[in-house]
Amino acid sequence: MKIVIIGSGNIATHIGKAFLHNGFEVVQVISRNKNHAKILAEKLNGEAETDFNKIAKADIYLIAVNDSQIENVVKKLNRFFEVKTLTTAARPLVIYTAASVSINVLENEKWNSGVLYPLQSLKKEVDADLKNVPFIISGKSKLIKEIATSISINVIEMNDAQRLALHVSAVFVNNFTNHLVAIAQEICEAEKIDFKLLQPLLKETFERLEKMPAAESQTGPAIRGDENTIQNHLRFFSNPTFKKVYKELTFSIQQNARFHSK
Amino acid sequence: MKIVIIGSGNIATHIGKAFLHNGFEVVQVISRNKNHAKILAEKLNGEAETDFNKIAKADIYLIAVNDSQIENVVKKLNRFFEVKTLTTAARPLVIYTAASVSINVLENEKWNSGVLYPLQSLKKEVDADLKNVPFIISGKSKLIKEIATSISINVIEMNDAQRLALHVSAVFVNNFTNHLVAIAQEICEAEKIDFKLLQPLLKETFERLEKMPAAESQTGPAIRGDENTIQNHLRFFSNPTFKKVYKELTFSIQQNARFHSK
Repeated sequence: MKIVIIGSGNIATHIGKAFLHNGFEVVQVISRNKNHAKILAEKLNGEAETDFNKIAKADIYLIAVNDSQIENVVKKLNRFFEVKTLTTAARPLVIYTAASVSINVLENEKWNSGVLYPLQSLKKEVDADLKNVPFIISGKSKLIKEIATSISINVIEMNDAQRLALHVSAVFVNNFTNHLVAIAQEICEAEKIDFKLLQPLLKETFERLEKMPAAESQTGPAIRGDENTIQNHLRFFSNPTFKKVYKELTFSIQQNARFHSK
Repeated sequence: MKIVIIGSGNIATHIGKAFLHNGFEVVQVISRNKNHAKILAEKLNGEAETDFNKIAKADIYLIAVNDSQIENVVKKLNRFFEVKTLTTAARPLVIYTAASVSINVLENEKWNSGVLYPLQSLKKEVDADLKNVPFIISGKSKLIKEIATSISINVIEMNDAQRLALHVSAVFVNNFTNHLVAIAQEICEAEKIDFKLLQPLLKETFERLEKMPAAESQTGPAIRGDENTIQNHLRFFSNPTFKKVYKELTFSIQQNARFHSK
């Protein structure tokens, strides 16, 4: 199976590597950024390309670009596959990796469409074993399932709505929790406090989340309704953005508790 | 050493138990809630009391009440210790456990003052080993350090300002991250998605935080500036509070990235 990878970011890198390790042939990496295309193409033993008019023939086209670029890439592919003479079985498979985009954006009689969304926070620079990462798939082609199961043992089919909800949840579980810890690290750095002091708390937080629903293990001034402490904390902030985050999360904890106690 | 514990909540329970295990005698638990006082007093082999006028004589008074009640408790103690005839060494030690309150609130010539703040999220219902929990202490009395080191191997002295900063950081690291996971769990429940799917992501998130600064491992639509995805996500929310949280955190991630790239 020959693959063209469109994109050279975090997801393109990790899925590209997984393809290579599973015996697929990555013939080309296309990216607007020449340097990034080169670096990834070298890793995947493919050719680097920046000009979409020189896109290679392949069985599978993997679109791993920013969500905002997907429609643009689809338009270009549409021009590239000029005629729709092929039977369903003979058509190439075009996949994108974006969780929040409807598969309707991709649907086209010139190719078979699929979504392949790895539910993990992937960084180019950090190695990842995708075998246990849940892969969310959509699309009618059987090939999409075969590809996913060749990479991961945890493959789940979902529709657009579920995939979107899952992506939003993932943003809360990973991106937002990570940012909150970044804020704590900034505060500690500014006050010359060793963040290591907070590592046991961080560990306990996570371990408790594995054992019980988060709503049941909520502690702190917000859930206690401890207005004195909340006011002391709000006076502490010099950064208005962090202060706003503190306010909104405190409000959300209190709203949610009220909702559940009704 | 005889101890009176004022309060019957999460911290009173855990520190009370630690006192008992370390050979202190808990003579009395005072709490406005009769039932809570009874339950804790029974665990600690002490007497339960709701009437502050019947407070017992002791060497140490531990105030573990809501921050908003501390001043009130101090006033009552002030009336109880009518005369200040004792020498510094003979005075009782009055401690509170609140991180965000200045030790000035407690200072009084009738007793020695101390702060004993365990840096951990403690729930009555969940057993905790306090030995490795960092205990933050303030106060001039040597006894406060002795007490802390009898409970924990990790005792650190801090002033009011540092303790407040540490508490704010702890709220971000524990209370707020926990709430974000609670939001994700609510979303999944509403959309009939098994939250177990997100457990590998949660695990990876925390494992990465142990290895590198959070700011370096930030991923997701906010840091990518992926406005399409952000708009798709904002359209998803039916709960206005969760939507606001999403907005504020996205803004904060982008502001922070801009600040650091300057």
